[in-house]
Amino acid sequence: MKNKRNIILYDTTLRDGAQAEGVSFSWADKIRIALQLDRLGIDYIEGGWPGSNPKDMAFFTKIRKKKLTNAKIVAFGSTRRAGKKVRNDRNVITLLKAQTPAIAVFGKSSTLHVKDILRTSPGENLRMISDTVAYLKSRGREVIYDAEHFFDGYKEDSSYALKTLRAAEEAGADYLVLCDTNGGSLPEEIMAVTEAVRAKFNTALGIHAHNDGGLGVAVSLAGVRAGAIMVQGTINGYGERCGNANLSTIIPNLVLKMNIPCLSRRQLKLLEETSRFVDELANIRPNFRAPFVGRSAFAHKGGMHVNAVQKNPKSFEHIDPALVGNRRRILVSELAGKSNVMLKAIEFGINLEKETPETRKILRELKRLGSEGYEFEGADASFQILIQKALGKHKAFFELEGFRVIVEKRKNGRPVSEATIKLKVDGSKEHSAAEGEGPVHALDKALRKALRPFYPQIAKVHLADYKVRVLDASAGTAAKVRVLIESRDDDDIWGTVGVSENIIEASWQALVDSVDYKLLKDRKKRRRR
Amino acid sequence: MKNKRNIILYDTTLRDGAQAEGVSFSWADKIRIALQLDRLGIDYIEGGWPGSNPKDMAFFTKIRKKKLTNAKIVAFGSTRRAGKKVRNDRNVITLLKAQTPAIAVFGKSSTLHVKDILRTSPGENLRMISDTVAYLKSRGREVIYDAEHFFDGYKEDSSYALKTLRAAEEAGADYLVLCDTNGGSLPEEIMAVTEAVRAKFNTALGIHAHNDGGLGVAVSLAGVRAGAIMVQGTINGYGERCGNANLSTIIPNLVLKMNIPCLSRRQLKLLEETSRFVDELANIRPNFRAPFVGRSAFAHKGGMHVNAVQKNPKSFEHIDPALVGNRRRILVSELAGKSNVMLKAIEFGINLEKETPETRKILRELKRLGSEGYEFEGADASFQILIQKALGKHKAFFELEGFRVIVEKRKNGRPVSEATIKLKVDGSKEHSAAEGEGPVHALDKALRKALRPFYPQIAKVHLADYKVRVLDASAGTAAKVRVLIESRDDDDIWGTVGVSENIIEASWQALVDSVDYKLLKDRKKRRRR
Repeated sequence: MKNKRNIILYDTTLRDGAQAEGVSFSWADKIRIALQLDRLGIDYIEGGWPGSNPKDMAFFTKIRKKKLTNAKIVAFGSTRRAGKKVRNDRNVITLLKAQTPAIAVFGKSSTLHVKDILRTSPGENLRMISDTVAYLKSRGREVIYDAEHFFDGYKEDSSYALKTLRAAEEAGADYLVLCDTNGGSLPEEIMAVTEAVRAKFNTALGIHAHNDGGLGVAVSLAGVRAGAIMVQGTINGYGERCGNANLSTIIPNLVLKMNIPCLSRRQLKLLEETSRFVDELANIRPNFRAPFVGRSAFAHKGGMHVNAVQKNPKSFEHIDPALVGNRRRILVSELAGKSNVMLKAIEFGINLEKETPETRKILRELKRLGSEGYEFEGADASFQILIQKALGKHKAFFELEGFRVIVEKRKNGRPVSEATIKLKVDGSKEHSAAEGEGPVHALDKALRKALRPFYPQIAKVHLADYKVRVLDASAGTAAKVRVLIESRDDDDIWGTVGVSENIIEASWQALVDSVDYKLLKDRKKRRRR
Repeated sequence: MKNKRNIILYDTTLRDGAQAEGVSFSWADKIRIALQLDRLGIDYIEGGWPGSNPKDMAFFTKIRKKKLTNAKIVAFGSTRRAGKKVRNDRNVITLLKAQTPAIAVFGKSSTLHVKDILRTSPGENLRMISDTVAYLKSRGREVIYDAEHFFDGYKEDSSYALKTLRAAEEAGADYLVLCDTNGGSLPEEIMAVTEAVRAKFNTALGIHAHNDGGLGVAVSLAGVRAGAIMVQGTINGYGERCGNANLSTIIPNLVLKMNIPCLSRRQLKLLEETSRFVDELANIRPNFRAPFVGRSAFAHKGGMHVNAVQKNPKSFEHIDPALVGNRRRILVSELAGKSNVMLKAIEFGINLEKETPETRKILRELKRLGSEGYEFEGADASFQILIQKALGKHKAFFELEGFRVIVEKRKNGRPVSEATIKLKVDGSKEHSAAEGEGPVHALDKALRKALRPFYPQIAKVHLADYKVRVLDASAGTAAKVRVLIESRDDDDIWGTVGVSENIIEASWQALVDSVDYKLLKDRKKRRRR
């Protein structure tokens, strides 16, 4: 149980984070991220703005069927529109339709925004806040009130800014979240204003910061020091412009530097993995230099530093990297940790002894693949198959003789894609051909067609997502690519990976792993029955 | 002239910054960066560690011949070694050989380091500091004393940490720089310790921070608030592990938020350009989300935000982007309204009237493409071509007759990719073939080969990044994919987009747009001359 002086972690990666340039999540991505955030120990997960697009509503419908251990799901939306009845407001109606235990509503705190953006009167704005909060409370929801542009509003007209909070408090809001929406405030300003608010209000306060001044983390911590008990942010600091306050940085600062146990030590170890998982699904190149979780965060290059770290790690490391699931890297000679593999294997429910030849073999294989560009953060199915192979327990479900894929385009016509494939299953040969929308589709279809006579359950597998990352940008179109495939059947979602200079080959590897994983999993299930 | 209460900017991009993973400067790069830093208005430029490698000495020799307007060049090195005479110490001798007006020497402040790393006695460490500073002063140098690990040392044993500073002060050091070398301190700790030091010393103080806690900027600003008058950092926050304190963020905070005129308004406008220039020479992919100087720092995506920014830019921008040489960007997504299109067009220097048939046509086209899955937020170049086409101003640079791409794999061998292409330019036909690492590479090569006789400048274009996104996950491998290509030549970076169920076709569209954009841009440039 968390104690009273603890901090509540509120994640908005799926909503504010999705406003980042280049970030766009499918609903399946959102589900996977929400489950990972729950595992990490986040208290509130803001899932989206159901009134703004149907994709977000799909997320709320699907997530209801999942069992969460730590987190409450939150739907986000605005206060009712000016001059409307709250119960007829389309946005408010969809907020309730999301059927979440908690709802975040944002309202305007700044007279500039009320006049210039909303174009309504200060009085009507107060009624919009109070009507909306009161209505949602009357429908049994926990209500988090986000005071948008609060600090800017307070600078302009503190008395009005405070009135907006009062409206929310009197209507029954459970949290008043002070937002530095434009991300331009200094920590000392945030601290002074938060303290002033705290002196006047009984409702629990939250802090929601952005990183436009490069101070998103510092501002959030200043808010906490001044008495806020909820911190809002996103994994890896995704968000519009320079991003939201970065939870991947804030959390370890709270736990390790400020001794606030908002995550357990065991949960904290999931931080690095969570950070990479979210980057993988967002198809965002990870920031190597990210504090705590970046690949370079504990990388030592200078000879003097490497030497000192060997004598005493504390000499150039502010924390033990293992605390956040990260590791030290010596840049001249790559050091891989046996314990990493162990931890990863245990995570997947595979028990490895520490000093066996198998563990060493997996480690060697993992190192070799890592240096070739494979990453298993978003590809747990491929990692499991890798372990099976290293343990000599993998049995191929089929043998490839060969495939050919052709894409042909005439003038401005639609291109035609055709694949042929030849394979063997238990001595029987299959030779199949298929046309597809594109070359990977044609290959996928030809593969399924060839396998179906032997493994009819393949028909149940759907490709849920397909991602490609160029690994060495400077090599242009000749660069290696990593393909990440997310597959689904009725019960599961799993990720597989392939790496090659050839996108078809990389896709092929990931397709084969996906099929292998499916067949393996079904075999295990049959045995269990 | 700068007034007394001003802050002195000390850049160590060329020394500490070069410790970053993946960063390596030639001496020629270093000269170019130093000249740019001087233009920007940096006061001290730490050029390298002449005792550590010959490349750094080459820099000091060459830079002496350059005329600098603002900056002093600084050589960096350690105090003499334990048990050595200072005048015979090889490191101290090379420091003097660098012939710089100022020298930075670092010494140990922490008993942990004296014992575990230096393996000498606390008393000898004090003599090493005092001998070295006194000797360099006697040779007419300005001396900046870097108290390495000062804050950690102070936490362990404040009395000893203060003694090391006293040794440097008494030996005549011009600055005492307090270093948070491991980057793990909180701003409030830095502030308290800096204030305590300030109360005890008369020498000017500096602050040198790292970003391991994501607080490098906040810690530097806290140091300034507590009385430090020199700030050390690097452009874009390069440096070992998570990097040094980021001057590209600190400077605008000092000038615009704390009203400290350490750069003139004219100089501040060079910030974005300086940031990009350094990334360019370091061959580091710019951080789009970087505060103030990043490409996304003033990018607006959400329809509501775009609308608000148009009504009043202050609504979602903490400063005017032009102050730091940056600019607002409106991201065009499928949710764009007329205002997004208008603003975007204006950004590209195309004047559209609000209610003309052309604007309506562009909007219609944009909506149609948006519903098909095109996104222009990362594809400015494709958007410009789209506008040209809608205005009937686009002239195709070539005509495609057809292409064919084949990928073939035998057993577990390496797949082979081949592309053939036939096209017409001004009536002449070209038919070319190429093999590639993968199908897109083969097609890209064949296209360039066919175009090169007509447009030799195509050889200058490099593919910098390549992204693929599945648009409708539920359609599996038959789903539409969006390909985003980032191309570069010597002057620019541009993005193009293609959408199709066929990844080859989508890549083809983006490749063609990239070529079109390049040729269009070069034609415009030629006209301007």
